[in-house]
Amino acid sequence: MIKVAINGYGTIGKRVADAAAAQKDMEIIGVSKTRPTAEALVAVKKGYPVYIADISKKAAFEKAGIPVAGSIEEMVQKADVIVDGTPGGVGESNKALYEKYGKKAIWQGGEDHDLAGFSFNAHANYKDAIGRQFVRVVSCNTTGLCRVIKALDDKIGVAKVKAVMVRRGADPHVVKKGPIDAVVLDPPTIPSHHGPDVNTVLPHIDIVTMAMIVPTTQMHMHAIQMELKRESSRDEVLGVMKAHSRIGLVQATTGIKSTAELKEYVMDLGRPRSDLWENGVFEASVAVIGKDLYFFQAIHQEADVVIENVDAIRAMAGDVKDPEVSIKMTNESLGFVAI
Amino acid sequence: MIKVAINGYGTIGKRVADAAAAQKDMEIIGVSKTRPTAEALVAVKKGYPVYIADISKKAAFEKAGIPVAGSIEEMVQKADVIVDGTPGGVGESNKALYEKYGKKAIWQGGEDHDLAGFSFNAHANYKDAIGRQFVRVVSCNTTGLCRVIKALDDKIGVAKVKAVMVRRGADPHVVKKGPIDAVVLDPPTIPSHHGPDVNTVLPHIDIVTMAMIVPTTQMHMHAIQMELKRESSRDEVLGVMKAHSRIGLVQATTGIKSTAELKEYVMDLGRPRSDLWENGVFEASVAVIGKDLYFFQAIHQEADVVIENVDAIRAMAGDVKDPEVSIKMTNESLGFVAI
Amino acid sequence: MIKVAINGYGTIGKRVADAAAAQKDMEIIGVSKTRPTAEALVAVKKGYPVYIADISKKAAFEKAGIPVAGSIEEMVQKADVIVDGTPGGVGESNKALYEKYGKKAIWQGGEDHDLAGFSFNAHANYKDAIGRQFVRVVSCNTTGLCRVIKALDDKIGVAKVKAVMVRRGADPHVVKKGPIDAVVLDPPTIPSHHGPDVNTVLPHIDIVTMAMIVPTTQMHMHAIQMELKRESSRDEVLGVMKAHSRIGLVQATTGIKSTAELKEYVMDLGRPRSDLWENGVFEASVAVIGKDLYFFQAIHQEADVVIENVDAIRAMAGDVKDPEVSIKMTNESLGFVAI
Amino acid sequence: MIKVAINGYGTIGKRVADAAAAQKDMEIIGVSKTRPTAEALVAVKKGYPVYIADISKKAAFEKAGIPVAGSIEEMVQKADVIVDGTPGGVGESNKALYEKYGKKAIWQGGEDHDLAGFSFNAHANYKDAIGRQFVRVVSCNTTGLCRVIKALDDKIGVAKVKAVMVRRGADPHVVKKGPIDAVVLDPPTIPSHHGPDVNTVLPHIDIVTMAMIVPTTQMHMHAIQMELKRESSRDEVLGVMKAHSRIGLVQATTGIKSTAELKEYVMDLGRPRSDLWENGVFEASVAVIGKDLYFFQAIHQEADVVIENVDAIRAMAGDVKDPEVSIKMTNESLGFVAI
Ligand SMILES: NC(=O)c1ccc[n+]([C@@H]2O[C@H](COP(=O)([O-])OP(=O)(O)OC[C@H]3O[C@@H](n4cnc5c(N)ncnc54)[C@H](O)[C@@H]3O)[C@@H](O)[C@H]2O)c1
Ligand SMILES: NC(=O)c1ccc[n+]([C@@H]2O[C@H](COP(=O)([O-])OP(=O)(O)OC[C@H]3O[C@@H](n4cnc5c(N)ncnc54)[C@H](O)[C@@H]3O)[C@@H](O)[C@H]2O)c1
Ligand SMILES: NC(=O)c1ccc[n+]([C@@H]2O[C@H](COP(=O)([O-])OP(=O)(O)OC[C@H]3O[C@@H](n4cnc5c(N)ncnc54)[C@H](O)[C@@H]3O)[C@@H](O)[C@H]2O)c1
Ligand SMILES: NC(=O)c1ccc[n+]([C@@H]2O[C@H](COP(=O)([O-])OP(=O)(O)OC[C@H]3O[C@@H](n4cnc5c(N)ncnc54)[C@H](O)[C@@H]3O)[C@@H](O)[C@H]2O)c1
Repeated sequence: MIKVAINGYGTIGKRVADAAAAQKDMEIIGVSKTRPTAEALVAVKKGYPVYIADISKKAAFEKAGIPVAGSIEEMVQKADVIVDGTPGGVGESNKALYEKYGKKAIWQGGEDHDLAGFSFNAHANYKDAIGRQFVRVVSCNTTGLCRVIKALDDKIGVAKVKAVMVRRGADPHVVKKGPIDAVVLDPPTIPSHHGPDVNTVLPHIDIVTMAMIVPTTQMHMHAIQMELKRESSRDEVLGVMKAHSRIGLVQATTGIKSTAELKEYVMDLGRPRSDLWENGVFEASVAVIGKDLYFFQAIHQEADVVIENVDAIRAMAGDVKDPEVSIKMTNESLGFVAI
Repeated sequence: MIKVAINGYGTIGKRVADAAAAQKDMEIIGVSKTRPTAEALVAVKKGYPVYIADISKKAAFEKAGIPVAGSIEEMVQKADVIVDGTPGGVGESNKALYEKYGKKAIWQGGEDHDLAGFSFNAHANYKDAIGRQFVRVVSCNTTGLCRVIKALDDKIGVAKVKAVMVRRGADPHVVKKGPIDAVVLDPPTIPSHHGPDVNTVLPHIDIVTMAMIVPTTQMHMHAIQMELKRESSRDEVLGVMKAHSRIGLVQATTGIKSTAELKEYVMDLGRPRSDLWENGVFEASVAVIGKDLYFFQAIHQEADVVIENVDAIRAMAGDVKDPEVSIKMTNESLGFVAI
Repeated sequence: MIKVAINGYGTIGKRVADAAAAQKDMEIIGVSKTRPTAEALVAVKKGYPVYIADISKKAAFEKAGIPVAGSIEEMVQKADVIVDGTPGGVGESNKALYEKYGKKAIWQGGEDHDLAGFSFNAHANYKDAIGRQFVRVVSCNTTGLCRVIKALDDKIGVAKVKAVMVRRGADPHVVKKGPIDAVVLDPPTIPSHHGPDVNTVLPHIDIVTMAMIVPTTQMHMHAIQMELKRESSRDEVLGVMKAHSRIGLVQATTGIKSTAELKEYVMDLGRPRSDLWENGVFEASVAVIGKDLYFFQAIHQEADVVIENVDAIRAMAGDVKDPEVSIKMTNESLGFVAI
Repeated sequence: MIKVAINGYGTIGKRVADAAAAQKDMEIIGVSKTRPTAEALVAVKKGYPVYIADISKKAAFEKAGIPVAGSIEEMVQKADVIVDGTPGGVGESNKALYEKYGKKAIWQGGEDHDLAGFSFNAHANYKDAIGRQFVRVVSCNTTGLCRVIKALDDKIGVAKVKAVMVRRGADPHVVKKGPIDAVVLDPPTIPSHHGPDVNTVLPHIDIVTMAMIVPTTQMHMHAIQMELKRESSRDEVLGVMKAHSRIGLVQATTGIKSTAELKEYVMDLGRPRSDLWENGVFEASVAVIGKDLYFFQAIHQEADVVIENVDAIRAMAGDVKDPEVSIKMTNESLGFVAI
């Protein structure tokens, strides 16, 4: 059993906790919280030991009905692998602690590539992560791009990618962030950082990205254009996508044309937290004109990286050497079959 | 076993189907759809026989992978109780069909009181529904009002209610309806229809309501003011609320101050479709000044009426005479304990 | 000529500048900016001398095409009255500067009453402001409440006010603030601070307020309930409102039922910045049941306090003793007749 | 004087009325309304004679304070050129009326190209419109694309355009349309109709477009990629844009990064209805990599076509043969200089 600790039990952390807890080869030995909020209460209900950042707040947690198992430092000592789910930029400050106890740790996409020195996507570079101490799972957008680019590059060849990322303004429960009624260029310069971030996983891909933020909470939408290395066909491209265990095709017959309807569909399927772990490629949108491929894909920011974290844990622990074996273990444990 | 059919497997219908299917004394013998959309696919995955409004579309359904069990008329014949979940105003046109076969039927709040001649809320008038052929489960907003007014009226006495309903513009998956950036008075006249609608269940209550629509999808928010019949205290009011099996108190320690954070909390609790079946009264808001009571409550429009439908089915079927027994059966079958 | 300086040329400041500049007895001797943004460029186009907070940034302003007239301290020295339009909480830190030069200053509703020791609304207490050194113009919501409460109290008598304020999340150009899809209780406790704030202007009014924030940028909406001191009629109440120069009645025949449609109407009327300076009471909503009065009013947060600032300047300068004279001068200079 | 009638005094119609009224060679002889709403009241205040679709409603208009000048048919007879601003699809049904009286008419982008047989953009094909009876001014998005593509094609040469249109869900005052919280593919297939629509004006351009709708009201945002016919430079491209009288460059120093901030800027500039008549190209975004050009442009849907309508009127009337002369007349009469 790989002993997994979640440092930062928030949007990503709580999902990774549940997904890791569902693996036969993993157990959650603790999760950390800074304040005794609703999420901490849920951790208690799920039976995860709660460790806290500032041990002087122990009484406040216990008054709120949350037994405190100890400090984050104690949690780290008990773990084999720590998944750091603290907010972007904060994760960096935890590195010394993980190093102090010689622990393996995974950071998320809010941290720079250099912090871990290795950026991960299960289908792209699982093998290179085997046995590593530090790994960064790339961001939700980058994960979504890497999956589909890697698959098409392997089977058909990708000469150039131009992607426009229309991003959600904030996660659904985040009420302080906007915009309320605006399209915000983020950044207003071109290219955005997403292209270089794809290159931390797939260094040889020629990619230019443009990004903006819109007033929605549900999912990101990618408008993707690719120049393939040779002429292809819509059917060939759809075939590559269908064959990928983490790319889903939103069928035209479902009538789904938006992120909101797609979210409703995965909700109705009974997925935990209505999570879309896979890329949601809109089948009707896939168009091939000569060497040019066009399509839309929805990326559920809270979900797609979760299963990548699980594979990253397994790769770092080192017992499962074959990416396909790990990916299958992860997917099956969650009852996950791409839509 | 009460044979339940869902005519109109949409936002409300699909939830009632799952909730009824979870009861020991009920089974879903069919659900109806007009088009072979994502929801129909989900019905198939859940094992609900799919009946269709227009049997000439059978081929289209089957092409989309949805076996068709028959026409709606055939479904109605097989059922003991039909839950009509068709859009507001459409339900009325189905009455003749239910009468033709002498079937019991439940309509939703989008239909007028007169259609069924009886408006239902489990805690308020379950006994009056026993054995009835036709029942209307009042709307989400009215359900939320009835629960809390009835409870306080029984225990303390309610002289007058003034409620402002800040309503969600559309359900989360509905992408055509707005507003995007406006507060819309609906209606611009005072009082709104909600007060009279409460009176269909609780005729003696003096209530004036004002309603508006805002650009959110998650939940309605009620700002409620009540004049109690006698001086009371915050503790007494909280006590009444806590004792009610379908009123939840959002604790201040959770840090939850908004509909979105509340939705996240029930999502994290693992509720199916992140449904808040109970009234979500914000504990911190409950204030008593003399005889005046003030509080905020969140009402999840898609969810609160679902469990009321289950109790209505049971009352109409007639075997369970005691409201508390039915309410307990319903709640326990869903593992539902108010937050 | 009253020499007016605007310290903090933002949402409120830029509007007060234009409104004061339109007065025969006032001139704008300077406005201040912290950064060389679009608003600063506009100040230059309008011919307002631009003073800057941090004089070391002078080169940056001039590179952006904005001539710098001097430091804020220099601006203050040249002014008779400073309108402080800096962000809530910042204004306080400027008090010492105004005192140093013995200058009169006006703060906005983001500051506490105690900072100025006097809270202003033209119709309510103009005379008490005559000759004062420091005045605070109450917030947009409080201004909207004071106008209508004072008018009805004078003519009919107000026993009790209960108001629910449904507030816009952010001003239209503010893209970082949310919420995107939530109703946020702000505060989650009752009463909100708006009631006590009304009491800084109208100390004898019995008022309880509840407040929330919704995802819109256009205007606030108030759902108001008042207990009048005697029985009245809809016509009497409408009469009082119509007679008030800063209360507008949105006629039912216009078809306007929302803040957005109301904004469009004032835009079409050609008002500068589409500003609704008056309270926008929805005529159709005004209902009187016995002693109880109910109505909705829209409050344009960016606009209603602007004309109050102009009157405050005039009162403090001291030459015009009669509130009605000042109010008329202000309104007429802007070509403003309430809708 | 060209006698102009506006059939359909709505979002576009009221703006064209004001812009045409500002021309020395045009006068508004009438505008038409179907209902006596706020817009009709404004028409009266502006002195435009109001004609109505259904003359039996005359009394209702007059009761609302709107004198009725006659029927639409009467208005058409008095006009030289009718600008049809009725909703998309409705305009078609008016053709017979315009033909009956042999009148010139302009439709908007909501109608098909074939209705008029000629699609107009002032900079692209003014000369071909001279003397025509029927002209269609292309939609807001197509107008924005045509301006910038035509300019770059003339000066540098455009080999291929790939554009992603992130569209506003509804105009600001439209409260019934959504989405509230979703990104909606519209259409979910690729290419969208915008490319072929550009080809009605610029037939030789190779263009593929993708389109979606987001929950905002302010402006559309275009993410544009162009393959130029030769290597170019950022400076050359900026030069072409700066030289165009209807392309504005949003300077980085303004700090403007969003549609909302851009709208605020034009509001502050005092533009009527805060209209951005020009394309709003974000200067910071303009990037040239070899032959590839990338940039973002904001398109104010309500505004950009307005000035094109004015030029179309003039071309059809036939006295001004030189496009640059007409464009200059139009721009100067409005005091319009691109930002
Ligand atoms: N939310 C997304 O959509 C998303 C998607 C992909 C990647 N990410 C990345 O995942 C990381 C986490 O993001 P999130 O959205 O889950 O954040 P979050 O704010 O939802 O959760 C962060 C958690 O960390 C805790 N925390 C804060 N400071 C801490 C500290 N010093 N020590 C321990 N715990 C602390 C907080 O209490 C909170 O529970 C970031 O790097 C982010 O960029 C987020
Ligand atoms: N959605 C809510 O928040 C909510 C809350 C409380 C009550 N209600 C009430 O519940 C009822 C249903 O609303 P909803 O939101 O679930 O609607 P919905 O649009 O989500 O679902 C309606 C379903 O009925 C089907 N349908 C339409 N016409 C039909 C016909 N002629 N025959 C059979 N099926 C047909 C549709 O395919 C759809 O599946 C309405 O009366 C509504 O007012 C809705
Ligand atoms: N915006 C509203 O809707 C509204 C309504 C009523 C009252 N108010 C109140 O008006 C005041 C101003 O609010 P606003 O919305 O106009 O703010 P804003 O952020 O739009 O503008 C503030 C301006 O002050 C400048 N500034 C910031 N720090 C400064 C400093 N130290 N010295 C000088 N200038 C500085 C900024 O550059 C900006 O131009 C606040 O007290 C607010 O509560 C705002
Ligand atoms: N709004 C935009 O953003 C925009 C942008 C570019 C082009 N357009 C196009 O301009 C046209 C008008 O759109 P709009 O947004 O101004 O519409 P709108 O709905 O704002 O206005 C339409 C007007 O036409 C009137 N009308 C309706 N039916 C009529 C009839 N039978 N006879 C006479 N008048 C009638 C309505 O009363 C209304 O005043 C459409 O073709 C649309 O596609 C709109």
